[in-house]
Amino acid sequence: MSKKINEKLVIFALGGVGEIGKNMYVVQYGNDIVVVDSGLKFPEEEMLGIDIVIPDITYLLDNRDKVRAILITHGHEDHIGGLPYVLRQLNVPIYATRLTMGLIESKLKEANLLGDTKRHIITAESELPLGVIKATFFKTNHSIPDCVGVCLETPEGNVVHTGDFKFDQTPVNGHFADLHRMAEIGTKGVLMLLSDSTNAERPGFTGSERSVGIELESIFSKAKQRVVVATFASNIHRVQQVIDAAEATNRKVTVIGRSMVNVVSIASELGYLRIPEGMLIEPEEVNRMASDRVVILSTGSQGEPMSALTRMARATHRKVDIMPGDTVIIAATPIPGNEKYVGRTVDELFRLGAHVIYGPGSVSGVHVSGHGSQEELKLMLNLMKPKYFMPIHGEYRMLKLHSNLAEDVGVLKEDIFIVDNGETVEIVNGIARKAGRVQAGNVLIDGLGVGDVGNIVLRDRKLLSQDGILVVVVTLSKQEGKVLSGPDIISRGFVYVRESEGLLDEANRIVTTTLNKLMSENVNEWASLKTHVKDALGRFLYEQTKRRPMILPIIMEV
Amino acid sequence: MSKKINEKLVIFALGGVGEIGKNMYVVQYGNDIVVVDSGLKFPEEEMLGIDIVIPDITYLLDNRDKVRAILITHGHEDHIGGLPYVLRQLNVPIYATRLTMGLIESKLKEANLLGDTKRHIITAESELPLGVIKATFFKTNHSIPDCVGVCLETPEGNVVHTGDFKFDQTPVNGHFADLHRMAEIGTKGVLMLLSDSTNAERPGFTGSERSVGIELESIFSKAKQRVVVATFASNIHRVQQVIDAAEATNRKVTVIGRSMVNVVSIASELGYLRIPEGMLIEPEEVNRMASDRVVILSTGSQGEPMSALTRMARATHRKVDIMPGDTVIIAATPIPGNEKYVGRTVDELFRLGAHVIYGPGSVSGVHVSGHGSQEELKLMLNLMKPKYFMPIHGEYRMLKLHSNLAEDVGVLKEDIFIVDNGETVEIVNGIARKAGRVQAGNVLIDGLGVGDVGNIVLRDRKLLSQDGILVVVVTLSKQEGKVLSGPDIISRGFVYVRESEGLLDEANRIVTTTLNKLMSENVNEWASLKTHVKDALGRFLYEQTKRRPMILPIIMEV
Repeated sequence: MSKKINEKLVIFALGGVGEIGKNMYVVQYGNDIVVVDSGLKFPEEEMLGIDIVIPDITYLLDNRDKVRAILITHGHEDHIGGLPYVLRQLNVPIYATRLTMGLIESKLKEANLLGDTKRHIITAESELPLGVIKATFFKTNHSIPDCVGVCLETPEGNVVHTGDFKFDQTPVNGHFADLHRMAEIGTKGVLMLLSDSTNAERPGFTGSERSVGIELESIFSKAKQRVVVATFASNIHRVQQVIDAAEATNRKVTVIGRSMVNVVSIASELGYLRIPEGMLIEPEEVNRMASDRVVILSTGSQGEPMSALTRMARATHRKVDIMPGDTVIIAATPIPGNEKYVGRTVDELFRLGAHVIYGPGSVSGVHVSGHGSQEELKLMLNLMKPKYFMPIHGEYRMLKLHSNLAEDVGVLKEDIFIVDNGETVEIVNGIARKAGRVQAGNVLIDGLGVGDVGNIVLRDRKLLSQDGILVVVVTLSKQEGKVLSGPDIISRGFVYVRESEGLLDEANRIVTTTLNKLMSENVNEWASLKTHVKDALGRFLYEQTKRRPMILPIIMEV
Repeated sequence: MSKKINEKLVIFALGGVGEIGKNMYVVQYGNDIVVVDSGLKFPEEEMLGIDIVIPDITYLLDNRDKVRAILITHGHEDHIGGLPYVLRQLNVPIYATRLTMGLIESKLKEANLLGDTKRHIITAESELPLGVIKATFFKTNHSIPDCVGVCLETPEGNVVHTGDFKFDQTPVNGHFADLHRMAEIGTKGVLMLLSDSTNAERPGFTGSERSVGIELESIFSKAKQRVVVATFASNIHRVQQVIDAAEATNRKVTVIGRSMVNVVSIASELGYLRIPEGMLIEPEEVNRMASDRVVILSTGSQGEPMSALTRMARATHRKVDIMPGDTVIIAATPIPGNEKYVGRTVDELFRLGAHVIYGPGSVSGVHVSGHGSQEELKLMLNLMKPKYFMPIHGEYRMLKLHSNLAEDVGVLKEDIFIVDNGETVEIVNGIARKAGRVQAGNVLIDGLGVGDVGNIVLRDRKLLSQDGILVVVVTLSKQEGKVLSGPDIISRGFVYVRESEGLLDEANRIVTTTLNKLMSENVNEWASLKTHVKDALGRFLYEQTKRRPMILPIIMEV
């Protein structure tokens, strides 16, 4: 490919480094930009009231004429979930494998964007000319089928993005990671490797998904009553194994939970799930079947409050009740932050008399990770033999440990780039260096609002959540120079008024005294009156309660 | 002991079952009540703004004349942290071993309760007559020295409470769990066993604390610069091993973090820590020492935002900076819910260039649990051979799994009592049965307020934290029957006003229209006006934003 003078290769993340989620990586050569993935992230606990988080794509909007494509590596939310928001602002072609596209289309349909979006289905054999950049792909293993890694051939050299991966030596669907293609890419030469760091903290190899299937069949065959299996809807290999184990043990399967129903329907339509004729039954039929003939495949493996499993555990599901003696399998590991929710769900299930199989996959046998552990990360590095390495897809500690692994297999320390979102790496004439930042960050989505909740609103929510708010309403008489009526004090989230009358009476008195004194001194500016009321009342309440409610004085004059 | 007609043995928890924390167990025979432990719990994430949680002790207050003693098994917060609140309402004698009492006294001093409290130091050999109940004790191993289990001899039979325990076959301080005494108690006969369920989910045996010491020494000797060790202050065995490893590797130790300084001072004063002359240095001296001669012993192993380790990680500690190349050891496992905080701290430490050793004890080698795993729980059951069994100290799933273990070793299913807090078990003539409930629950402490934050306040805080609040201030003219001034809308935590002018202007219009219409229809009652404003505005905002802020209408009339 032609290489122009002054053109350079620039690589950066708009999301996905220093965090798990909202993956979006950018490779630019001159006037051509290729974006890899477009994910969302679930909010951190301090992002109160926020529903989801997506990357700030200002850089792409400012360079919209250069963006040739968004390539999607696989169909997980942290890789496709941002698309509806991004495509609404930036209508560029998207490329994905068949299953991935099926999952994307379901999203775009809901967002009413299906008609306007240029969608292209690729296979691992596709070659895409995207300006001066050529994209090719290679098959990988992960917890969802039809995953690919991406090789971007640029005039400066090849940039490889692994996508999410593990090396499963006995994959459920017989689709092996394409070691040969990876070896070939490595032989041709990789200038820069971007590789998945999720499990960089875990020694050894990640287990094969197949081991879960064996365990499931053993549990199904021993269970004397119904079996409920909760797992991630998108883990289609796992879903297939549940169906296979049901078939082997002469059970029927019913599917509950919105996302599970949706994914099973898309995946089976597209041929990614093999479901024997008559295997699926409606939830309503469950109660009419012998209990040892039924498997319930459900969402809720993270203990999500509104999920099907949580409803069953609380005995509030409309269609399915858990009976004493039923077996419930939670085939997933809690995502950090969800441990307590999962624990509570397990507690409720035990209270209903269920036999619950849960806990780390190494103990329960019913879960393996979709991401490669340290030995697999080294295997990828050794296959690709990159000159430069950028660990991606992980919290900082994971990126750091992944970079240690890269050093272990021979990548030079100075050739490893641990970056923040927005921090660019430029490669010119084979020499890579960090080169400034582009705008990057979190765009918070709350209800329909995209980006309208910022730090001030979040700070207020935090304050309100800790000690509540007191609204103080008072009417002043200018003429008489004193409080005319009020103060009325309204508490929300501070104290329960009926039980704190003494405190609030005294608070009233302090507000009146403060205002009368100020006015007698001819202090009349509203801002000053309000500040004095806030200070005096805040001090009193802190002394009395050691709490700091937000205080909102409303002063009217007549 | 004499047994009167109509008297019965009653056993229940006021805290500690179905939860980890606020342990408080009650054994009553006739007119004699013995309480075991008096702990606190840290708030659940939905208890917004709450500082700590203690048990509801209404039952004890209603029966204050019968309470003979509070026996304390060991000095952890979940066993002693409630004492300042309980003793203020119920001045009964407390009994504890020497170290435990030292830790309690430090608390009581702070609460200004030291003088009024009847304190009795016991040893594992003590025998206490408490009305018709006699208390004896037995030594156990745990992550703090001077732990005991309790045997309460009652006219009905013996009730054994294990306290928190593991069986450490190579204890750091040479104090073995007293297997012989336990065997003797078991031989005499145990009517009811209450046993620690914390690790009922973990197969096998818990490792010996000594293994941690070996690993620490190895890390200290290899580290080329300073070593920071963060662990629980109360884990005095661990602290001793840090000091021993420092001595063996020719390093000095400095202690930072309020609770670490406090515990080290109490434990060394009482002789529970062996600290060589000249071993401890002040934090200020650290910077003057060669970096490979220093160990920093710190709080913050849970990533607590205000702790010493978190401050060092954020480079905001007043006295100690982490330098690139320093080694930081997090010698603890995150308590469920704290994983993200610990992860962030590790991230920050890596960013500072530190070498961080963290993660599950099985991988890091620098932590073992203080609670026995499944094989140890069975060993305790086999030593005690109880007729009846009540698993305590754990979430429901742990209690349930512990009861499965009891069945495995031969306790009859019908002789096992899994109870909720307040649910009583009565034993009369050797026959045990569940027998009604006494008042029990959470008392929430927020600042100085004990129990003044209830469900309504918490619900408001939750609402406020999700979507904030809108205060709508409007003045009506009765005579003219219309809005005179306003509405003024004040937003806190909903939207940032400057960026949402259009929305708020429209909201203003809706309030005015609603009120004018109502008044033209002669609807004048305040309650009705407020409800209509709330409804109309809430509906509009939900349509526009899919959010539901709290709406507080303030309507003034002139």
